[in-house]
Amino acid sequence: MRPDDSNLAGNVHGGIILKMIEEAGCIIGTRHCNVQNGDRCLAALVRVEKTEFLSPMFIGEVAHVTAEITFTSKHSLEVQVKVIGENVLTGAKKLASKAALWYVPCSLKNVEKIMEVPPIKYASAEQEEEGRKRYEAQKMERMETKARIEEAVAPPANPEQHTVGFSQSSLIHLVGPSDCTLHDYVHGGATMKLMDEVAGIVAARHCNTNIVTASVDAINFHRKIKKGCVLTVTGRLTFISNKSMEIEVMVDASSMVEAEMRKYRAVTAFFTYISLDKDNKPLPVPSLKIESEDEQRRFDEGKARYLQNKAKRLPLFLVP
Amino acid sequence: MRPDDSNLAGNVHGGIILKMIEEAGCIIGTRHCNVQNGDRCLAALVRVEKTEFLSPMFIGEVAHVTAEITFTSKHSLEVQVKVIGENVLTGAKKLASKAALWYVPCSLKNVEKIMEVPPIKYASAEQEEEGRKRYEAQKMERMETKARIEEAVAPPANPEQHTVGFSQSSLIHLVGPSDCTLHDYVHGGATMKLMDEVAGIVAARHCNTNIVTASVDAINFHRKIKKGCVLTVTGRLTFISNKSMEIEVMVDASSMVEAEMRKYRAVTAFFTYISLDKDNKPLPVPSLKIESEDEQRRFDEGKARYLQNKAKRLPLFLVP
Amino acid sequence: MRPDDSNLAGNVHGGIILKMIEEAGCIIGTRHCNVQNGDRCLAALVRVEKTEFLSPMFIGEVAHVTAEITFTSKHSLEVQVKVIGENVLTGAKKLASKAALWYVPCSLKNVEKIMEVPPIKYASAEQEEEGRKRYEAQKMERMETKARIEEAVAPPANPEQHTVGFSQSSLIHLVGPSDCTLHDYVHGGATMKLMDEVAGIVAARHCNTNIVTASVDAINFHRKIKKGCVLTVTGRLTFISNKSMEIEVMVDASSMVEAEMRKYRAVTAFFTYISLDKDNKPLPVPSLKIESEDEQRRFDEGKARYLQNKAKRLPLFLVP
Repeated sequence: MRPDDSNLAGNVHGGIILKMIEEAGCIIGTRHCNVQNGDRCLAALVRVEKTEFLSPMFIGEVAHVTAEITFTSKHSLEVQVKVIGENVLTGAKKLASKAALWYVPCSLKNVEKIMEVPPIKYASAEQEEEGRKRYEAQKMERMETKARIEEAVAPPANPEQHTVGFSQSSLIHLVGPSDCTLHDYVHGGATMKLMDEVAGIVAARHCNTNIVTASVDAINFHRKIKKGCVLTVTGRLTFISNKSMEIEVMVDASSMVEAEMRKYRAVTAFFTYISLDKDNKPLPVPSLKIESEDEQRRFDEGKARYLQNKAKRLPLFLVP
Repeated sequence: MRPDDSNLAGNVHGGIILKMIEEAGCIIGTRHCNVQNGDRCLAALVRVEKTEFLSPMFIGEVAHVTAEITFTSKHSLEVQVKVIGENVLTGAKKLASKAALWYVPCSLKNVEKIMEVPPIKYASAEQEEEGRKRYEAQKMERMETKARIEEAVAPPANPEQHTVGFSQSSLIHLVGPSDCTLHDYVHGGATMKLMDEVAGIVAARHCNTNIVTASVDAINFHRKIKKGCVLTVTGRLTFISNKSMEIEVMVDASSMVEAEMRKYRAVTAFFTYISLDKDNKPLPVPSLKIESEDEQRRFDEGKARYLQNKAKRLPLFLVP
Repeated sequence: MRPDDSNLAGNVHGGIILKMIEEAGCIIGTRHCNVQNGDRCLAALVRVEKTEFLSPMFIGEVAHVTAEITFTSKHSLEVQVKVIGENVLTGAKKLASKAALWYVPCSLKNVEKIMEVPPIKYASAEQEEEGRKRYEAQKMERMETKARIEEAVAPPANPEQHTVGFSQSSLIHLVGPSDCTLHDYVHGGATMKLMDEVAGIVAARHCNTNIVTASVDAINFHRKIKKGCVLTVTGRLTFISNKSMEIEVMVDASSMVEAEMRKYRAVTAFFTYISLDKDNKPLPVPSLKIESEDEQRRFDEGKARYLQNKAKRLPLFLVP
């Protein structure tokens, strides 16, 4: 982990970790889909399941990223990835993050053509069955989120502090060759890095403290993004609990040169941030001033997600 | 702003700011020129008007870059760009820089073909008239500077401290894919970043202190630079006032693989640097030892530019 | 030198210096091979002679890289490169490193076609004769090392501290556009940077201190590496003297999309690292626990290299 990977306090950005996770997933997925005959293809990211950042990483630490294919359907595959942080000076290791990603193989000749995925062997019928359940669940959710597209509205001219408008932020990025590798489409990891960058600015503006990514809700990649596109990545606060902030991040892509291609929503996600003091301990977060019905609705939806996640997390501590 | 964007004292390099400004100009210009039918095109930078760096930016701050098209002629357009620096921890904002850039649309199929620019609507006839004056003025200056090409002479073997030869510096850069985006030609912003890098080394060598870019005189981009070219960027002191240094920077391009294509001067500019103490206050600059008639001539020309800029700047303080 | 070029103590990585050296060699070599008629070509690195890092470089310093062609055979050329580090605040300069590199010109149209190298003029017949001797010596060594390929074995599950398995490290890298310039093949310098990165992690894991590259044994580049390949770079300790560690680094390339192309060994090299205290003074290195016959054999071979290098180095100090 290098200086540019982290904030001023030395904490590595969650977006850097997401980018590494996705690169590992893309390599293992692409390799698996090319063992058979037929067109050469690249594994394109379509979804990342909810990801938690369990312990912070710092500049100078070494990140170990391991990836495994855990389920295959006819046209998609699931990769599970684990990131372990190692302090090479003390030798201490910790689990920084783990994630599950879904890929589909796109032909290198024609990016719209989805190839078939060679099946993997499962250790047990039970394992395959669990994979199939995860597959069905994500398939349903991907369809659902496709419908729901919220507009990113420009904030008012002189927003009051601690309102949604005050911390709302946008970043514009011109997609260059370094964002792409084997063909002219952006890696999902490059997009997630930008999303985390914007979410971090929103969180810092609201708190005026050192902030870090705690988790990211499931991210669906609805449409591919091509080299030469301009991305507008917008983040805004939706919900605030005692010690966390939920930020909705929307990625809109538009072509600079193809006027007929209208701006489209490529990705949406919810990032959860926490605010830290100098000893990396969580601080209370200033409450959010709600100014409209839409903001109240988003706040309530965010609260529902928060409570649902909290409920899901409980068993972890109850299991002996 | 990240660690790699700044010097050891945490000041963001002027070249990084110029690169962001140019990226914003290129995006808005390219988008505007592609709303009509015909070949797809890219806005290529031909000139940047004199740019001042009004307040320093630091690592961890957020830069807001806004761009607006302010004039269009048949084959060129003017973009005005503003950079605001925001400290997200204190919430403080300041105007870091503003600039005016001229672009021409080059066809993506044939980079030598200049496309037509769709006209913009002006708020008033006066506004259009002012734009036309700026257009005529820059057109004349671009022609004038095309003629004047100074040779970059290698400095003597063991130059004495505080001479022109002592601080003269050259940087060699192989143009790679990251310097280019939509076609295989270098973005003007990437070139300006290199120019500022060399000027900074010249200034630091002369002063042995922390130095920052105060302003850049108008820059004309005479010829395009292709991927695979080798750039030689040379900087040398021309003039020194009480508290500032003027550095002439010359960019020469040559192809590694096309021997028949001779080295050519692609860009020239004058950068003004100031020397800072630990509290970011300007320090006096060591005087320059002149050793030849050419150096004296360049010094006198630099002094004329300095006095002219000073005179131009005066009204700013007189206006209530 | 920027923050990302260095470790936490501010020492610039040896890999960054090797990358600069190779870029300089590639530019001068490519330019030389394209002065004649025929296909345009790129100088591809085939070998770097043993390289020593004579004095450390730090963030904020300026690196001067100068290159000269010192020998040409029909199909290859030797470039000698020198890196001088300059502290622009104090004006102090020091020789950071010097290296000799061998290139062959590959046609840009067909990368497997080796072009002819135009001959250079020598200052004396003696100079040419010495070049020829170096040429014959490296040719022989390149053939020898082609035969010897060691497998990189995965370390045991819970290795004990200070064993070979404990510090053995692997890095996986997906070759992207920034690793390549004029055609879709990786620059030798990009590969060496990755190799030094892995060797540095191995050394830090063994010592738990600030470590720096002291030297690199001759490196042979047996096969080219294409864009889209996945590189597995593995480093393991082979030998330890009182104050130095020798680390063997192996680079294996495989294509993600061409299943029929099997993983192949592209490069191998031995890096020597030293451990430093806070004042940049060498520290004693913990001894290495040998656990197998293979490890003992590699240790003995490393010791032989160490003694041979020590013997070769002596004359340097005896010459007045």
